[in-house]
Amino acid sequence: MIFLSFKLALCQMLVTANPEENRERASQMVREAAKNGAEMIALPEMFHTPYSLKSIAANKEKADGRSVTMLASLAKECHVYLIGGSIAEQEGDALYNTCFVFGPNGDLIGKHRKAHLFDVDVKGGIRFMESDIFKPGEEVTIVTTEFCDVGIGICYDVRFPELFRNMTLKGAKLIVLPASFNMTTGPAHWDLTMRARALDNQIYFAGVSPARNLESSYHSFGSSCITTPWGEFCAKLDSNPAIAYGTIDLEYLDRIRKELPLLKQRKIELYSQ
Amino acid sequence: MIFLSFKLALCQMLVTANPEENRERASQMVREAAKNGAEMIALPEMFHTPYSLKSIAANKEKADGRSVTMLASLAKECHVYLIGGSIAEQEGDALYNTCFVFGPNGDLIGKHRKAHLFDVDVKGGIRFMESDIFKPGEEVTIVTTEFCDVGIGICYDVRFPELFRNMTLKGAKLIVLPASFNMTTGPAHWDLTMRARALDNQIYFAGVSPARNLESSYHSFGSSCITTPWGEFCAKLDSNPAIAYGTIDLEYLDRIRKELPLLKQRKIELYSQ
Repeated sequence: MIFLSFKLALCQMLVTANPEENRERASQMVREAAKNGAEMIALPEMFHTPYSLKSIAANKEKADGRSVTMLASLAKECHVYLIGGSIAEQEGDALYNTCFVFGPNGDLIGKHRKAHLFDVDVKGGIRFMESDIFKPGEEVTIVTTEFCDVGIGICYDVRFPELFRNMTLKGAKLIVLPASFNMTTGPAHWDLTMRARALDNQIYFAGVSPARNLESSYHSFGSSCITTPWGEFCAKLDSNPAIAYGTIDLEYLDRIRKELPLLKQRKIELYSQ
Repeated sequence: MIFLSFKLALCQMLVTANPEENRERASQMVREAAKNGAEMIALPEMFHTPYSLKSIAANKEKADGRSVTMLASLAKECHVYLIGGSIAEQEGDALYNTCFVFGPNGDLIGKHRKAHLFDVDVKGGIRFMESDIFKPGEEVTIVTTEFCDVGIGICYDVRFPELFRNMTLKGAKLIVLPASFNMTTGPAHWDLTMRARALDNQIYFAGVSPARNLESSYHSFGSSCITTPWGEFCAKLDSNPAIAYGTIDLEYLDRIRKELPLLKQRKIELYSQ
């Protein structure tokens, strides 16, 4: 059976200091999205814990911990593809920022560890050094679904266009990026980067953030969105808790690639000359 | 001597059916920009002829033709770097869409032939087949100036992010792109693409178009602009004839690259894995 389109939902949830409450809030939102017909549902980066190095270290879990177990059973219960945002995953002595992806029967079908860590120091803006606690992932992650191949990145990964070009050339037609841009780089770069990755690669590109919680030390930009292969938003939230729904239309994607055949017109001999 | 900044001007000129008048209009604008302190001045794509396959074929010139000769003497007269938009360049039986670049003493310092030809067919929008008359260039073009290295692309070249990443990695800190987006892709993609190339590569990116001429068959989007390494416009025109001025601030560029060290954080092992 060939699916020409499917419904994607992005759960822009509030993340508070209590991981148990965060998991409960995530479950409720995923159930609501499934009830509304979503066939693939995504959660934000660090959906179980506030985004501070201290909270992250305090709430780390192993791959068979509470959050991951919850995601697996939720995917099965709702019979959806569930892109589980990310959690602080402990493996041995190492900590990773990891997205676990489940199929509709609850099986783990993919796992992405954030490969590009957020180490920045903007004058008068944000300073953050993820590599103080995390190790980077070393893999490109594309998961196979019955609809299409889906590339997974996490937040700062999006700054590196080559990664998404690579996923595109390997066949991904949708990228889902759990993320949490901040109030320095969010207003300056979020919309632009989401749209550019979609347009340049002629893919659907979805970024899913936590809602902005002014009681946390880290204020997420929110603005979860789905961008079309023409570079337009087909779904976009503000900073409040909400679910964004969008149709991933694979026929439309094919039409754009036929009309403006960018991927066939590449001249790779010029890109390293 | 190390230059920390310099002044760039983009001449968004009206292009009409008479090539002699177009050259005269270009000369006047370049003289005005130089009088106003510009040290590098750029003209738009096909500044000597309307952008239709018929006009282009009728106005083709050899590399020692009237337009190129005029550009060389103009650069010398004004003592500026002159990025000569583009002309229809005939070499033997072949026709190229070529940008000639001159130094302040009138010497040719670079030449870019449009490498990605504009062959598109958008439903309900534009259809154009440049490859019906042009041959593509096969070279990456970076010109050395006393200020910084400058990458040159022409219009549709901008659709291919790898080309500009390559120029960036080779040291270009400014790209100048003579262009003429149309009224289908211009409103949809021009601003986005200019800003994305600048932001992703942390370079200055300048696009220079003809003014919109509603008496021509091809209506240029105009909107000549200079984008900073932070992805913001520092100069932007509407569709009318005008000169855009902007400061290329190489200290600012270095600061952005220090605060958000994207070019050092690339993980190339993931881009072909």
